[in-house]
Amino acid sequence: MSEDHGVRANGRTRIDFQTQPERYRHWRLEVDGDVATLVMDVDEKGALFEGYELKLNSYDLGVDIELADALERLRFEHPQVRVVVLRSAKPRVFCAGANIRMLAGATHAHKVNFCKFTNETRNGLEDLSENSGLKSICAINGTAAGGGYELALATDYIMLVDDGSAAVSLPELPLLAVLPGTGGLTRVTDKRKVRRDHADVFCTVEEGLKGKRAVDWRLVDEVAPGSKFDAAVAARAKEFAARSPRNGAAAGIALTPLTRTFGDSGVEYGTVSVELDRAARIATIGLRGPTAPPPESADAMTALGAKFWPLQLARELDDAILHIRLNELEVAAIVFKSAGDPAQVLAYDAFLDANRAHWLAREIRLLWKRVLKRVDLTSRSLVSLIEPGSCFAGTLAELPFASDRSYMLIGRRDGDNRPPAAIALADVNFGAYPMSNGLSRLASRFLADPADVDAAKAARGKMLDAETAQQLGLVTFALDDIDWDDEVRVFLEERASFSPDALTGLEANLRFGGPETMESKIFARLTAWQNWIFQRPNAVGEQGALKRYGTGQKPMFDTKRV
Amino acid sequence: MSEDHGVRANGRTRIDFQTQPERYRHWRLEVDGDVATLVMDVDEKGALFEGYELKLNSYDLGVDIELADALERLRFEHPQVRVVVLRSAKPRVFCAGANIRMLAGATHAHKVNFCKFTNETRNGLEDLSENSGLKSICAINGTAAGGGYELALATDYIMLVDDGSAAVSLPELPLLAVLPGTGGLTRVTDKRKVRRDHADVFCTVEEGLKGKRAVDWRLVDEVAPGSKFDAAVAARAKEFAARSPRNGAAAGIALTPLTRTFGDSGVEYGTVSVELDRAARIATIGLRGPTAPPPESADAMTALGAKFWPLQLARELDDAILHIRLNELEVAAIVFKSAGDPAQVLAYDAFLDANRAHWLAREIRLLWKRVLKRVDLTSRSLVSLIEPGSCFAGTLAELPFASDRSYMLIGRRDGDNRPPAAIALADVNFGAYPMSNGLSRLASRFLADPADVDAAKAARGKMLDAETAQQLGLVTFALDDIDWDDEVRVFLEERASFSPDALTGLEANLRFGGPETMESKIFARLTAWQNWIFQRPNAVGEQGALKRYGTGQKPMFDTKRV
Repeated sequence: MSEDHGVRANGRTRIDFQTQPERYRHWRLEVDGDVATLVMDVDEKGALFEGYELKLNSYDLGVDIELADALERLRFEHPQVRVVVLRSAKPRVFCAGANIRMLAGATHAHKVNFCKFTNETRNGLEDLSENSGLKSICAINGTAAGGGYELALATDYIMLVDDGSAAVSLPELPLLAVLPGTGGLTRVTDKRKVRRDHADVFCTVEEGLKGKRAVDWRLVDEVAPGSKFDAAVAARAKEFAARSPRNGAAAGIALTPLTRTFGDSGVEYGTVSVELDRAARIATIGLRGPTAPPPESADAMTALGAKFWPLQLARELDDAILHIRLNELEVAAIVFKSAGDPAQVLAYDAFLDANRAHWLAREIRLLWKRVLKRVDLTSRSLVSLIEPGSCFAGTLAELPFASDRSYMLIGRRDGDNRPPAAIALADVNFGAYPMSNGLSRLASRFLADPADVDAAKAARGKMLDAETAQQLGLVTFALDDIDWDDEVRVFLEERASFSPDALTGLEANLRFGGPETMESKIFARLTAWQNWIFQRPNAVGEQGALKRYGTGQKPMFDTKRV
Repeated sequence: MSEDHGVRANGRTRIDFQTQPERYRHWRLEVDGDVATLVMDVDEKGALFEGYELKLNSYDLGVDIELADALERLRFEHPQVRVVVLRSAKPRVFCAGANIRMLAGATHAHKVNFCKFTNETRNGLEDLSENSGLKSICAINGTAAGGGYELALATDYIMLVDDGSAAVSLPELPLLAVLPGTGGLTRVTDKRKVRRDHADVFCTVEEGLKGKRAVDWRLVDEVAPGSKFDAAVAARAKEFAARSPRNGAAAGIALTPLTRTFGDSGVEYGTVSVELDRAARIATIGLRGPTAPPPESADAMTALGAKFWPLQLARELDDAILHIRLNELEVAAIVFKSAGDPAQVLAYDAFLDANRAHWLAREIRLLWKRVLKRVDLTSRSLVSLIEPGSCFAGTLAELPFASDRSYMLIGRRDGDNRPPAAIALADVNFGAYPMSNGLSRLASRFLADPADVDAAKAARGKMLDAETAQQLGLVTFALDDIDWDDEVRVFLEERASFSPDALTGLEANLRFGGPETMESKIFARLTAWQNWIFQRPNAVGEQGALKRYGTGQKPMFDTKRV
């Protein structure tokens, strides 16, 4: 894996976020009644890039893609599961964290993207507990170091074997001169509420803590001797399952493989298209509205399964965003467009509202919430173009609200007899899809005056033309046909001309006005500092700790404190 | 100013944070009844470092040191002032922001320290309004660009002349490929609550916005034509003064110059000493308790003026911290020690409590709040050593709570007949000194269980020995004489051996558990991203925007988005 660009192993031409349990190389998903077990058993030879082996259950992005997939399957394919136990198949090792040689060799962009995705996976595990009632237990049979302990931190309950050697640790600082950046520091202080001086000790002790002190300092919830460990875990799993509010059906739906065609200039999905203009550094994501009205009943929705339009679209959009993030690094801006009947989109939202108590409807809404958060956190300029024939309504209206700017065309274009552009709001725009700061996108947009949120609420269900949408503050600019082409072209050219890094920093600030949550702190306070450290010679320079790890040579530090 | 180290102008051997109005080169502080005017009139030739001139009211750290001093004088020397107007003496220019050539030539450490100090100054201006009732108006007579507009953002009310050319702008991104990092982005979204898409437009338009749109988009509060501008400002100042709750006396106290002696191995103040062990990379700050009981009355306190022990100590500690931050970059850890009678310290806290309605008592408490926040934000490892003869009580107990760790000696040392170490709490530890996250240091410490705060509260006024203090969670380790030397030595050696950058990131995360405020977002989300950008070749590389600004050559960017 060269500094400039990693060489993907096994002739892969791109990083693929789609997988399925039969293809897993690193995890096993075992389901037994209402208890699932996710067994981590990383295949040393199964690395995503060349140049390193995944020893001691260390992981790279490929391992985490499987974990993310498994969590989706628990949501959709196994609604009867009420608790999931994470454990290791390796003796005396739970997980050694992110692979250090992978990190040492990775480009800066890959490190940043890798951490972002692993963070999103861990947030998804917490969301699974909080909003789907599927509780999680981490059963640590040995060493849980760095990212291994950070994975444990994302579960509801951490159990550690008490055998005199098993320990949890965050050795990133002393060993590698970087931070525990996959939420570790934030979850220690804000989720487990470890006292800050204890956290300081813990994060600077390479070997970590074990036994009673690990419990006393709130780092784990329970320790049990080796001989009783499995029984203790089983008992807790049973107890958690009994307490879980998850009311899923006995049978789930199959998350069938996405149908995708990758071409030179984009990707075609069923309801999504990605069109790449590499010279202009623009990716246009087109969203297609439903082609039929919503099904008659929840049972009919379940029968449609992965073909149910809102579910299909969410999965395809998620894959498209991840593909651009990881495989199309030169893309400066993502343009969202849509085509379809906004009334139909509202009908699907009304259908999901009406069936909100149904497990599948709820999981689909939760999936949309996560996909939209992924959009918010994508470090590309985001713009929505709202044109005649588009269907930015209800759930799809969140994309203009997630965008850095939106442009809406007034009236029709010559020779185009599609209806003028309209956007429409629904209940779903007022709380179902909180951002990581805990607010809806409209509440975040109208921080200055809650009355603006009320005015938007009062307009629910109406087809809002460009001038009305602008008046309500829902779009940035309403333009007529004469100005449209020039304004949009200049904006996109300008965006491609600016420093990509400065745009990343700007957007990471402007998108998240208002309050912060533990989740948003992970992506702001923690991640921004980690990204800084990932640029500092003390970590990544030739004499830095990350490069020298394992060479027998000590790192050489610039000793100035900054 | 070389990349490795700036060359200070005029043979200065260190950056000095002490000044006084008679020595100002860049500001004039004019006081007229209850209205003060701070006139910015930067002396081009008065730069702190060689290699640039401070044209168009651009500023460097030296300019901001004068501003910070002027704000302190308004607090202590002019308690009758109810409103301060910031304006420029230059025609058609308010302020061009931080000097670009200074930034381009500055070391990374200096850029970071410069932004931190200017942020603290702007937060101080807001605190002056919020907690001292001294309102501020920014009267912009022309261009307010970048840091110039950020200074305006820190005031309560922004007035802009409406002459067809005067504008406010944040051109950092398009011009320099960096962020408006002195709070700009955060104040735009969180204080002025500008809609995020409007903010996106504003921050990417080099020339900024003016006139009506600047008002409509909430960027300024009022515009007035040039012929009526001065009268409009005067009228607003009168109105703000009339509404101000500031109830200060007619006469203030003089902030007399600090008495300091700089030596090779430290600095001696009246109540503070700084001892440098350069080989070990440690600075020890010794705090001396009061040598006499508190005065009999508020009048007697006023008569003591700058010699009143809590005020003298706060000013000296502040200067010592700033000196270490900017002039002693190799210091890895700051060790806090104290000597004195803890009961006397408590007596001073009780005196300030009893006189809390008195303007001077209130200003002294607010100064301590700011100094302690400065400690929290200092990127050095902080440790308190609590030994026999020390006086970490009340206000001074905040230093162990601000430290990353604290060590307390159990009992006495052989041959030492001073009383065993004791710490003592007072009312002041439970709310008077919030951190930037809005919580007291004890509430931040005991996030896990508010009952621990209650237990500490119940122990107010008692002399707590080491074991009790540890039991209450107030210190990290209570050690006996046998272990003390080794434990402390190993800790300090370890701290000096770690990557300075990783420690900065770790401490910036662990110190600020819990909620975030606008202020803490500025130091976390915004500053951490800015520091990342300050490391990126697109900004600071030879072909980067900051280096190429003004050369006529366009910057060359790595176009990958990270």
